Amino acid sequence: MRIGVLTGGGDCPGLNAVIRAVVRKGVTAYGHEFVGFRDGWKGPLEGLTKPLGIAEVRGILPRGGTILGSSRTNPFKIEGGVEKIKANLAEQGVDALVAIGGEDTLGVATKLHDLGVKVVGVPKTIDNDLNGTDYTFGFDTAVNIAMEAIDRLHTTAESHHRTLVVEVMGRHAGWIALHAGLAGGANVILLPERQFDVEQVATYVTKRFQVEYAPIVVVAEGAQPLDGQMVLHNQELDSFGHVRLGGIGQWLAEQLEEKTGKEARTVVLGHIQRGGTPTAFDRVLSTRFGLQAIDAVHEGDFGKMVALKGTDVVRIPLIEGTGELKTVPIERYEEAEVFFGN
Amino acid sequence: MRIGVLTGGGDCPGLNAVIRAVVRKGVTAYGHEFVGFRDGWKGPLEGLTKPLGIAEVRGILPRGGTILGSSRTNPFKIEGGVEKIKANLAEQGVDALVAIGGEDTLGVATKLHDLGVKVVGVPKTIDNDLNGTDYTFGFDTAVNIAMEAIDRLHTTAESHHRTLVVEVMGRHAGWIALHAGLAGGANVILLPERQFDVEQVATYVTKRFQVEYAPIVVVAEGAQPLDGQMVLHNQELDSFGHVRLGGIGQWLAEQLEEKTGKEARTVVLGHIQRGGTPTAFDRVLSTRFGLQAIDAVHEGDFGKMVALKGTDVVRIPLIEGTGELKTVPIERYEEAEVFFGN
Amino acid sequence: MRIGVLTGGGDCPGLNAVIRAVVRKGVTAYGHEFVGFRDGWKGPLEGLTKPLGIAEVRGILPRGGTILGSSRTNPFKIEGGVEKIKANLAEQGVDALVAIGGEDTLGVATKLHDLGVKVVGVPKTIDNDLNGTDYTFGFDTAVNIAMEAIDRLHTTAESHHRTLVVEVMGRHAGWIALHAGLAGGANVILLPERQFDVEQVATYVTKRFQVEYAPIVVVAEGAQPLDGQMVLHNQELDSFGHVRLGGIGQWLAEQLEEKTGKEARTVVLGHIQRGGTPTAFDRVLSTRFGLQAIDAVHEGDFGKMVALKGTDVVRIPLIEGTGELKTVPIERYEEAEVFFGN
Amino acid sequence: MRIGVLTGGGDCPGLNAVIRAVVRKGVTAYGHEFVGFRDGWKGPLEGLTKPLGIAEVRGILPRGGTILGSSRTNPFKIEGGVEKIKANLAEQGVDALVAIGGEDTLGVATKLHDLGVKVVGVPKTIDNDLNGTDYTFGFDTAVNIAMEAIDRLHTTAESHHRTLVVEVMGRHAGWIALHAGLAGGANVILLPERQFDVEQVATYVTKRFQVEYAPIVVVAEGAQPLDGQMVLHNQELDSFGHVRLGGIGQWLAEQLEEKTGKEARTVVLGHIQRGGTPTAFDRVLSTRFGLQAIDAVHEGDFGKMVALKGTDVVRIPLIEGTGELKTVPIERYEEAEVFFGN
Repeated sequence: MRIGVLTGGGDCPGLNAVIRAVVRKGVTAYGHEFVGFRDGWKGPLEGLTKPLGIAEVRGILPRGGTILGSSRTNPFKIEGGVEKIKANLAEQGVDALVAIGGEDTLGVATKLHDLGVKVVGVPKTIDNDLNGTDYTFGFDTAVNIAMEAIDRLHTTAESHHRTLVVEVMGRHAGWIALHAGLAGGANVILLPERQFDVEQVATYVTKRFQVEYAPIVVVAEGAQPLDGQMVLHNQELDSFGHVRLGGIGQWLAEQLEEKTGKEARTVVLGHIQRGGTPTAFDRVLSTRFGLQAIDAVHEGDFGKMVALKGTDVVRIPLIEGTGELKTVPIERYEEAEVFFGN
Repeated sequence: MRIGVLTGGGDCPGLNAVIRAVVRKGVTAYGHEFVGFRDGWKGPLEGLTKPLGIAEVRGILPRGGTILGSSRTNPFKIEGGVEKIKANLAEQGVDALVAIGGEDTLGVATKLHDLGVKVVGVPKTIDNDLNGTDYTFGFDTAVNIAMEAIDRLHTTAESHHRTLVVEVMGRHAGWIALHAGLAGGANVILLPERQFDVEQVATYVTKRFQVEYAPIVVVAEGAQPLDGQMVLHNQELDSFGHVRLGGIGQWLAEQLEEKTGKEARTVVLGHIQRGGTPTAFDRVLSTRFGLQAIDAVHEGDFGKMVALKGTDVVRIPLIEGTGELKTVPIERYEEAEVFFGN
Repeated sequence: MRIGVLTGGGDCPGLNAVIRAVVRKGVTAYGHEFVGFRDGWKGPLEGLTKPLGIAEVRGILPRGGTILGSSRTNPFKIEGGVEKIKANLAEQGVDALVAIGGEDTLGVATKLHDLGVKVVGVPKTIDNDLNGTDYTFGFDTAVNIAMEAIDRLHTTAESHHRTLVVEVMGRHAGWIALHAGLAGGANVILLPERQFDVEQVATYVTKRFQVEYAPIVVVAEGAQPLDGQMVLHNQELDSFGHVRLGGIGQWLAEQLEEKTGKEARTVVLGHIQRGGTPTAFDRVLSTRFGLQAIDAVHEGDFGKMVALKGTDVVRIPLIEGTGELKTVPIERYEEAEVFFGN
Repeated sequence: MRIGVLTGGGDCPGLNAVIRAVVRKGVTAYGHEFVGFRDGWKGPLEGLTKPLGIAEVRGILPRGGTILGSSRTNPFKIEGGVEKIKANLAEQGVDALVAIGGEDTLGVATKLHDLGVKVVGVPKTIDNDLNGTDYTFGFDTAVNIAMEAIDRLHTTAESHHRTLVVEVMGRHAGWIALHAGLAGGANVILLPERQFDVEQVATYVTKRFQVEYAPIVVVAEGAQPLDGQMVLHNQELDSFGHVRLGGIGQWLAEQLEEKTGKEARTVVLGHIQRGGTPTAFDRVLSTRFGLQAIDAVHEGDFGKMVALKGTDVVRIPLIEGTGELKTVPIERYEEAEVFFGN
């Protein structure tokens, strides 16, 4: 059997560990051959390949990023895209695909499977917001990086009697903010799942200063204040139309400085949350995902994605992982609120 | 309500995070009072206490160890032990206990509960071998420390064409060895759950050198060779009757050096696996354990221990966690074997 | 003898280690007493004190920040400031001061010494730009934090074929950018000491993509393009008149995206560079600084600051450390240029 | 010009950074060609080579170990060794050598230079005991690893009221023990440079327990008790005649347990001190060493080794670095003693 492998979407620690596990077990246990497709769906679309065997996966387990490259190319948005993919897979003699990616990448995989392409999916998102799996790899690494940054910021906040606002990843789901905030001992945590009242946040901050400690506020990049509170928050797009770094965090720090009379500073963690070597949790999870994915391919169990349920790695229909987003349940947020302002 | 808190058994990253969560929620949300008992069951046995309030738990979230101290004292092995505990609890005006510890500590808690003491347990073991919970806190930290050590050892092994044997914790269960070995890209992993054939290990090691890479062998301290293979392995007790550091690891390295003709070295990670700041996973888990434990106490739901099931923190009868050990299932070990010798 | 200790200016890993060494040796070896002044020169100015003895300095060696708090208060800018300080020192029975801080704090110390206050200085700047000492503590920690961030960003840059611009601290001197850039394998390093040609930077970036690797550009926050190149770079002040996060880094990324046709992203490390536990280098240096400072006080050798020369910690006149800034010599920059664009 | 590069002796973080800097500048700035010799002096002795160009040094800056391999082979101990080396250099068309190593490797380089081989040396020793240079690369990394281990052990020592003895590298010089001990807040530091009195150590340990803290004792592997104190310390060689892991540390822990009546445990850090990614200090130092070495070669300035003096990288005669060992001066040890037992 000849199997293609690709990685799509934003990079994430653990991608290389998945690739390695797929190839190591595929070659050693089953005798399959592999071909790497470059840059997500762009690879099979344009016939961009890379050799992929035991030699290519040596030493990549601890490395962040993906040796195959990535992109956000969607073949369904390109005329004749699907036909090109089928033609290129045929030309490369590829019998089946392992597609590693997030909602978009797996969404394409789902549709291609319906059109007859043999594919197994491996879920990937640093934001931990994919349904059907308890956790995705990369998330634990991101949370640890954010926590270490928060640990560092505590001493600066105390020394200068300042509020420090830490903006972390999470446009639609607040998992990183919730876990990093809990782990870092944040005094307020703000998520996209619930609009926040900037007056209430200022009250928490003030209360914290009263006990002679300085507050850390962790805010997900997608968190929003109550309707009407952000009248001052405009022109936050840069000249390329991107959201400017320090969007919500910067705005919030300015508000808190004004409302509490204490200096406030912002730190935007940005891309350092998604690069670099994975944690042990993410290396084990991505390795087990890879082993389960190649087993599925070997057994001809296509249209599935692998998933973590408790301590087991199982297979579920691709469609289950790519429906609606897995956001933070309100009870998990309320569980954390006991620490706010204290 | 006045609640006693104690920590027993070997120290473990996350103990302080549990204590903090119990006290923060107990005081803030429920208005309870707390008293700390020092050094495990020795505290209530001998009436050794420590003030425990919001002030005492400030800043302890990231700190390893336990501010309450620990011991392996078992009141059931001391004459009149139970009566002394009951008397001291009464004297301190303690209505209920939160006992944080492993099999021994929770075993005592179970028996005391049967004798009328109101107690809630929080499971703790770095070895992850307690039944009833998917994971225990401290385990993730230990695995990451071991993985980082293995990462470092790879470059030494390669540079000197040597075998490196890494001995990790795990007397009865091989969870740390399995996860650290998978995460660190070990070439052989040896667990207490299955006796190993030293000839087979030597074959794996030789095979690895043939592909021009140097092998890392991860061995749990409790792993054993096949019956009859360890004739040379004697007098491994020091002058105090303790198992000498470098027991199985040292023996194995000597054997591999002899059988493969390649230099072999041992590293025994020892106590650095159990100290220091917890990972994010362990900080979140221990915090959630603490919150659930104080909820149980507040609701009068005694005789229970908290546990992780999937992503939920639940309560189970104390007895369920302290029965038999949770060892590594054979299928988890076989899953890892595909990487051996490659 | 009764000795006051204060820390001024921005916080910096190692401040607590200095305080601890001063107090430990002062009490143990010499039998002196100590009093802590809060928040830099604000402390003696307003008579804000804190107990400072062996108990207070236990466990603070590995902690970032300063247990004494800090501020940028300058008594020479306050009417009657010097008199108030003298009065408060007299009231506290303080015979001599150890002042730990950067150019501003030590500048005040110098002037107070001229006015008869017995003071010894300990140089502190994360930017490493104080004259008279080979290195200041905190710098090594900042460089390591920046390097680790750059290590992480490499994999993201490669995976997405993007330019990553990393903005590090350094308004007037580029030491952090130079060392972190060298250590992190940056492809271009930009310093305040030399205006850069944005066209040349774009050429380096393009060259790097041609060898199939993605570029990392490290830019000090105070680096500036050639005169006239920054026409687009305006309104970078926020509503509080602070320089907006992502000033030069954000501008440069936009320019590079436009000129090279490759996506570019910015990461602004900000305050995480100055918080948290110090590296071994900084803990040893700050401890030795503290020991030398208390020796100077004990010997009555006032008007001096401690300094590192090679491997020796020596004393130099305070005035030598607070004259002109120690910027990066042009030959050190040219030494690094061999790596640019490759 | 065609230049050979080799690395000898024990591996050390920063070796790859030296190789990279030599090759990058040699090719880019000067147009030289390179060949790698494998496994130290064994390479030129047996004609074992490896291609070495820009492609081979990509990505190796952060990697520990050495891509060229290492050995302790000494051509002067092999009949006809020097002639074989000369012949192999001639056959490979090699005009000059860059030899990176410690006392042994540079000792060979010195003798070969006297015999007409054009060679430049780069000093390397994790122990920091080479004369002529303020620091060697690898040392800072080793000290940080040891310090992080000590940080972790503090919490275990406190929680269990135990003495923890940490054995670190240093057979003949105690630099790692001194710096790691100072940085880690050890309560006693023991070096090879001064025999210790085990009774005095026990007194320090007891004193520490009296202030309610638990002691950490850092001992260099080459430290020795006073003559006559180690009567119990025998049979410490394993069946291969190697010094058994846990030699002095294990012995000391047993002694302290007996003399103080408090449990004591040993941790032997061993090989984890020398592997893995270098710190920023070591990456910058090794990069600057490499740049200076290739400059020396290019200028025909042979028989020299590079060295750090203050903040400058300079060249000194090879013979200066390989004479006597640089041990810890007694005044540096006494400087640290103020912290003992407190």
